[in-house]
Amino acid sequence: MTKESIEVLGLGIKRMKADGVCIKLPDTSSIGIISTKNKFPAIPIIINKQKYPYSRIKYFFINSGNANACTGKVGMRNAKDYITALSNRLGCKSDNILIFSTGIIGQQLPIKRIIASINKCEFKFSSSLKRASKAIMTTDRYEKWIVRKFKMSGIDVEIRGLCKGAGMIEPNMATMLAFVFIDIKATTKILSKILQSCAAESFNKISVDGDMSTNDSVALVATGLNSIDLTNKKNYKIVEQNIQSVFSQLAHMIVSDGEGATKVCKVSVTKAFTLDQARQTCYSISNSNLFKTALFGEDPNWGRIIARLGSLSKVKYNSSEVVLKINGVTVFMKGVPTDKSNSKKLISSMKNSNIDVEICLNSGSHNASMFTSDLSKKYVQINSKYTT
Amino acid sequence: MTKESIEVLGLGIKRMKADGVCIKLPDTSSIGIISTKNKFPAIPIIINKQKYPYSRIKYFFINSGNANACTGKVGMRNAKDYITALSNRLGCKSDNILIFSTGIIGQQLPIKRIIASINKCEFKFSSSLKRASKAIMTTDRYEKWIVRKFKMSGIDVEIRGLCKGAGMIEPNMATMLAFVFIDIKATTKILSKILQSCAAESFNKISVDGDMSTNDSVALVATGLNSIDLTNKKNYKIVEQNIQSVFSQLAHMIVSDGEGATKVCKVSVTKAFTLDQARQTCYSISNSNLFKTALFGEDPNWGRIIARLGSLSKVKYNSSEVVLKINGVTVFMKGVPTDKSNSKKLISSMKNSNIDVEICLNSGSHNASMFTSDLSKKYVQINSKYTT
Repeated sequence: MTKESIEVLGLGIKRMKADGVCIKLPDTSSIGIISTKNKFPAIPIIINKQKYPYSRIKYFFINSGNANACTGKVGMRNAKDYITALSNRLGCKSDNILIFSTGIIGQQLPIKRIIASINKCEFKFSSSLKRASKAIMTTDRYEKWIVRKFKMSGIDVEIRGLCKGAGMIEPNMATMLAFVFIDIKATTKILSKILQSCAAESFNKISVDGDMSTNDSVALVATGLNSIDLTNKKNYKIVEQNIQSVFSQLAHMIVSDGEGATKVCKVSVTKAFTLDQARQTCYSISNSNLFKTALFGEDPNWGRIIARLGSLSKVKYNSSEVVLKINGVTVFMKGVPTDKSNSKKLISSMKNSNIDVEICLNSGSHNASMFTSDLSKKYVQINSKYTT
Repeated sequence: MTKESIEVLGLGIKRMKADGVCIKLPDTSSIGIISTKNKFPAIPIIINKQKYPYSRIKYFFINSGNANACTGKVGMRNAKDYITALSNRLGCKSDNILIFSTGIIGQQLPIKRIIASINKCEFKFSSSLKRASKAIMTTDRYEKWIVRKFKMSGIDVEIRGLCKGAGMIEPNMATMLAFVFIDIKATTKILSKILQSCAAESFNKISVDGDMSTNDSVALVATGLNSIDLTNKKNYKIVEQNIQSVFSQLAHMIVSDGEGATKVCKVSVTKAFTLDQARQTCYSISNSNLFKTALFGEDPNWGRIIARLGSLSKVKYNSSEVVLKINGVTVFMKGVPTDKSNSKKLISSMKNSNIDVEICLNSGSHNASMFTSDLSKKYVQINSKYTT
């Protein structure tokens, strides 16, 4: 076996629906994982950490519909019980399995149904990425998966990725699970380094509502197929760029599926005094409800962006040197709106589904960017009815 | 003259509507003002600062419909021009007038109409608090004013207050103007001290959407009527408590009028490691859209509160010692939900218009609280259509 293979199950959490995924990894795999920094980590996060650096891992097991978070000792026992059931059924040890959960917080798993489902499953591992990505959805409107192929040193390399996530998306991972597989050999050390840098530029740059969940995880697996010398800088860069591209596309799918979202907006901050200030400004504007409702209303409301920027007491800049562009049109500079701030061209560009906001602070040399979605009536509707 | 008196004008900014207020102060007045820390302060904020400590001030002049913010040199000239027109009409100097504006950012005032209106006005100063509070409304749904009477040392003392504000309400003052008058004599120093402490416990404790505007100001005027010895600790305390009460009631009116709000929620954090951490936690939970939509949905969604708390990396606590109460019911402790977390009593209490959330961190001795409103579909509707 040189690629991962997938089994989709119905665990009985969501009743009648596929809500479980088991992924079998090639023996030659190495694994890197980044998970949530939330101080109330879900049971799977706690259990997986004990298995670091994952050298013995042969299976990933994922369920949707229940986060197994804030479930205490009962939640811990349930997780251990289904891992035991799985290991019996798969003919491996408990230590060979990593688990991931997403869904409602604070409810116990229907453990009897789950174990019965595991015992009943034939584990043929013949399911598709598409079916797996559908089985891990919660408030997602659509499945999120991608296959990317590229050639290097005459070798065909494939990357396969799937993820879920819509609400609660926030830097530092949110109710988001992502699994990416690349057909190369890599040491855990190199893989972790690539994972960190690629996540920083993708999953950690999206924001739907400023919340961070108890369960978020991103796993990157090198399956072991294809020996490529990653100590060679050029090779490393090609691999990194391709993984980066897959991560970015998955992250973009998540933010586009932001609960009730009708638009995706890239917020860029340039020439900031420090990198931290660039990021803080991106983050703050990306999370302004006044800005996000203006996006929904297709209103080039530069005043709300400037007012939000002005409220950031720790960001250093001279207010008369700030330049704000919306969709490439300079709308604000030298402390006042330009005569293009209300132009027909700008107003009609707000109907686009992708919006660009660029704030140049002119106080240094650091840049950052982040993707956000608009705040719609549907967001309120979804989140006032759904119990997480 | 021992009290302030009011003239309401139509300045032609909102057409056909009353949109201007001139307040004449007793000669014996002393004045304290707190204004926005936004780095793009509106023209009135810049002009007023030059007149500190306000010992020569005889009039406040307020307009709604236009913030005169981000309006540059033209905005500055316009403000000076209408101050000159006012001073000519009122027979005083430009230095005797403080100005306040609220409304759309980045548009120039219709200065000709404003000056014509000022020149035409008879300035009889016979308007009521109610009319004045109506004239300074923007997205407010109702007028906000209050009169409070109390007795001390055998003397009847009156406090009169009016304010406006609904969206963009945020600690450090938002698109909020408040004017409070108390019939006592006070030095500027003592008055400023009372103003700071009372604002910290009222206007700086409300949050509708986490934004901070370019124009916010709170003015406290001691009219000079009634000599009370404020160096006497007991007297000081009585005066402070009464002003505090007026401030709190005005702040509560603002948060209740949060754009589209259907509920007001008090978020309290107790036993925090530092005061700053208590405040940061209050602020973060008060501004969580997931929490605010759950409030709108009348859902006692403790999971979202705990997930938000968990995401605050700088707040020190032991996650197994956190106790969360909603409407007095303990819903979460020792890392898990209690059996009351889904009780009928709790669920039906979520229909109340006032909701209480209390998070005990059990890591120190510091407490903080803040008022917030829910996030409704109407908030999105109002803010996607209104250009600030």
